[in-house]
Amino acid sequence: MSITDLLGLSAAALTTGCMIPQVFKAWKTRRTQDVSLAMYLMMAAGILLWLIYGIVIRETPVIAANAAAIVLVLAVLALKIRFG
Amino acid sequence: MSITDLLGLSAAALTTGCMIPQVFKAWKTRRTQDVSLAMYLMMAAGILLWLIYGIVIRETPVIAANAAAIVLVLAVLALKIRFG
Repeated sequence: MSITDLLGLSAAALTTGCMIPQVFKAWKTRRTQDVSLAMYLMMAAGILLWLIYGIVIRETPVIAANAAAIVLVLAVLALKIRFG
Repeated sequence: MSITDLLGLSAAALTTGCMIPQVFKAWKTRRTQDVSLAMYLMMAAGILLWLIYGIVIRETPVIAANAAAIVLVLAVLALKIRFG
């Protein structure tokens, strides 16, 4: 694997994985009042489009990163809808 | 512009622009208690790596999207640090 690939993979891991602490925080505190619903609705729509884009251009890394991201963004959305 | 390009651009616009409502919400309410600091630290690191990746592979859309995103993620981070 090249340094460039490693850079891209680290970037993808961080921008996808960054939602994990938000999921845990919301789950633990049962509070999401300061979290923007509009942000996560836009993010869910955007990640869905990235996923379709990845399927169209047949790029497995794009598909994998966005498949993982959509699970996390839906988790934040579910907690936001649950806790308000 | 192809349908595929338009799909990618719409995806990028949504996943970058989604932070705008969070910036406005935090600014208006002056509350960020439920927003995860770890999430935005990881996101800032990830977007910085995407930006370097874009520069390395010389892809203007990757550079442009992540340059815009880093401004927004730093705005959320600044508000989070300011309001706690």
